Amino acid sequence: MSSSSSIDQPNVITCKAMVAWEAGKDLVMEEVEVSPPQPLEIRVKVICTSLCRTDITAWESQAIFPRIFGHEASGIVESVGEGVTEFVKGDHVLTVFTGECKTCKHCESKKSNMCQVLGLERRGVMHSDQGTRFSVKGKPVYHYCAVSSFSEYTVVHSGCAVKVSQQAPLEKICLLSCGVAAGLGAAWNVADISKGSIVVIFGLGTVGLAVAQGAKLRGASQIIGVDINPEKYEKAKCFGVTDFLNPNEYNEPIQQVIKRISGGGTDYSFECIGNTGMVTTALQSCCDGWGLTVTLGVPKTNPEIASHYSAFLSGKTLKGSLFGGWKPKSDLPSLVNKYMNRVDEFITHNLPFEDINKAFTLMREGKCLRCVIHMPN
Amino acid sequence: MSSSSSIDQPNVITCKAMVAWEAGKDLVMEEVEVSPPQPLEIRVKVICTSLCRTDITAWESQAIFPRIFGHEASGIVESVGEGVTEFVKGDHVLTVFTGECKTCKHCESKKSNMCQVLGLERRGVMHSDQGTRFSVKGKPVYHYCAVSSFSEYTVVHSGCAVKVSQQAPLEKICLLSCGVAAGLGAAWNVADISKGSIVVIFGLGTVGLAVAQGAKLRGASQIIGVDINPEKYEKAKCFGVTDFLNPNEYNEPIQQVIKRISGGGTDYSFECIGNTGMVTTALQSCCDGWGLTVTLGVPKTNPEIASHYSAFLSGKTLKGSLFGGWKPKSDLPSLVNKYMNRVDEFITHNLPFEDINKAFTLMREGKCLRCVIHMPN
Repeated sequence: MSSSSSIDQPNVITCKAMVAWEAGKDLVMEEVEVSPPQPLEIRVKVICTSLCRTDITAWESQAIFPRIFGHEASGIVESVGEGVTEFVKGDHVLTVFTGECKTCKHCESKKSNMCQVLGLERRGVMHSDQGTRFSVKGKPVYHYCAVSSFSEYTVVHSGCAVKVSQQAPLEKICLLSCGVAAGLGAAWNVADISKGSIVVIFGLGTVGLAVAQGAKLRGASQIIGVDINPEKYEKAKCFGVTDFLNPNEYNEPIQQVIKRISGGGTDYSFECIGNTGMVTTALQSCCDGWGLTVTLGVPKTNPEIASHYSAFLSGKTLKGSLFGGWKPKSDLPSLVNKYMNRVDEFITHNLPFEDINKAFTLMREGKCLRCVIHMPN
Repeated sequence: MSSSSSIDQPNVITCKAMVAWEAGKDLVMEEVEVSPPQPLEIRVKVICTSLCRTDITAWESQAIFPRIFGHEASGIVESVGEGVTEFVKGDHVLTVFTGECKTCKHCESKKSNMCQVLGLERRGVMHSDQGTRFSVKGKPVYHYCAVSSFSEYTVVHSGCAVKVSQQAPLEKICLLSCGVAAGLGAAWNVADISKGSIVVIFGLGTVGLAVAQGAKLRGASQIIGVDINPEKYEKAKCFGVTDFLNPNEYNEPIQQVIKRISGGGTDYSFECIGNTGMVTTALQSCCDGWGLTVTLGVPKTNPEIASHYSAFLSGKTLKGSLFGGWKPKSDLPSLVNKYMNRVDEFITHNLPFEDINKAFTLMREGKCLRCVIHMPN
């Protein structure tokens, strides 16, 4: 990394980033220029970033390139833009893909974490000026989810970063910036699982297993995990899964099996795959009267969720969960304090920054939960 | 009516009933034989029955004939079957299309009104023995929703009737046996509308207007009514509708208009038409974060509800409402006491039994809310 600054010149940082040039093609290590933070923005030295399934989905299917992916990350504030009072250089932070402005109607409501100012950014630019802060040889490089943590340095809106305790291990808590928090929050905030409940979880990746762990901590009596990868069962047990079902091993629809082993349907169903067809199955798996299905996944294809109306007429509810209902600034610091020593089980791999493509392969092959990518010092 | 009974002979009643012989064809007044009540059943002299849209939907589209429709009714117990301890001859009752056995898991739970023993009966028979209690010249006549109130006498399971105060006017409270209660309950029990909320209601029939009245009584600040029949507006105002929208008068999708006039989407949306496409519109009309869509309608065609996953990911919830979440036996008697003098506005027509086909025409043409059919003395 080299930086240059004077009174008139903006303080551009040149550093390494893993750039995606084309959909589905290996990321390429490049020298990128990172602009100084603009008003209300901060520049963060990324310490660790873990790979989340959503990065892969976007990298495989979206059209915005070149782009720097990565949104689950921890880091240290390097500099702050005009008007930033919440952060100073040296603060430890988690980045978040959905921000909290603290002033909009949604931030002011207790019922929503859907900030209207700093919500999910889908166009690959910064919220403030619709521009980018990265370039390679003068060519702009797009952001991802307003975070772009596959870079030694990144610029994020100050509303999309959360200050955390200096004692929290940055190489672990990056998992709480998205996946693990999303699963725990779905179980606790969105579904509000009660003691003795029966739960089914479709998809035993990090998010699904975090739901399982959340359900277990709430005292669920039966936690059914559904996944077509039989290797997931051993690991899933550690997270509280009591029954493992592989749909490929049954000749009947899996929802029938679930209804049978749960005595008429589960109290809660969670779709953690990103498969809209599975949302229908999840709805069919939960019980009449009070069965609640929570959908967390982002589908790669078939964006329409469909269900026979009678599922609803019989008293079922379908609810979405974005980031587990957490308000990032208000809720994450205490979650980090409470949970920072419980995330180890999710970390199956630690890799150096240059090996990030290996992490992509591991996740696509279903061989990891979380790969933590360690940036060079 | 004539009845015959002796020690050995069952007490069959011969009386008038309006029988549907074919889908969509006028009902025909017939002499029917009504069996005595079997164990745990009661026979009811129907006093008043009002026509509900669901009767028409089933009459138009289902294949079970000959059949006696009608499920929204009040009456007086004529006789009771073996084992009935809750009712005696002379009790005033409302019939209900979904019963309450008081012993199943759902009846025991506070969260459900989906009795597993006496729930919605779809095959035209009695719950207990899958038989019918009606016949015309020896030919069995099917029931509807285990009620069949378009007959001077009917037999219902004792779990599908609710004892009400003798002071409650039977010619009015029949509306609380389905439509009006369904709408009020959707607003109060299922959505639990809070003060100052913005509500949109699709379909301003009896159920939709009961939702409006329920919303008004909860202190909703804006109640948007959507209907393609412009004549509904004047009446709708009486029920609390503050803004009337006719989708045919706009060149843009109605959800865009709703989002605009509600400042970003409503807090609650209610689908009271029975059109699954409109459920999607209702979801799109409510706000991110906490927007709740309640679906009450039973569609005649296209039973699949479909929605883009992003509606849920942005924090919306879709919930069904059957009979407004009321447990009939536990909740209706007090609702009747509180509400019996507030149903007049829903009664647009009173007709004698023999004119029941007129009620069908009025409802199909959108010219009535509730037609109360008065049985002969």
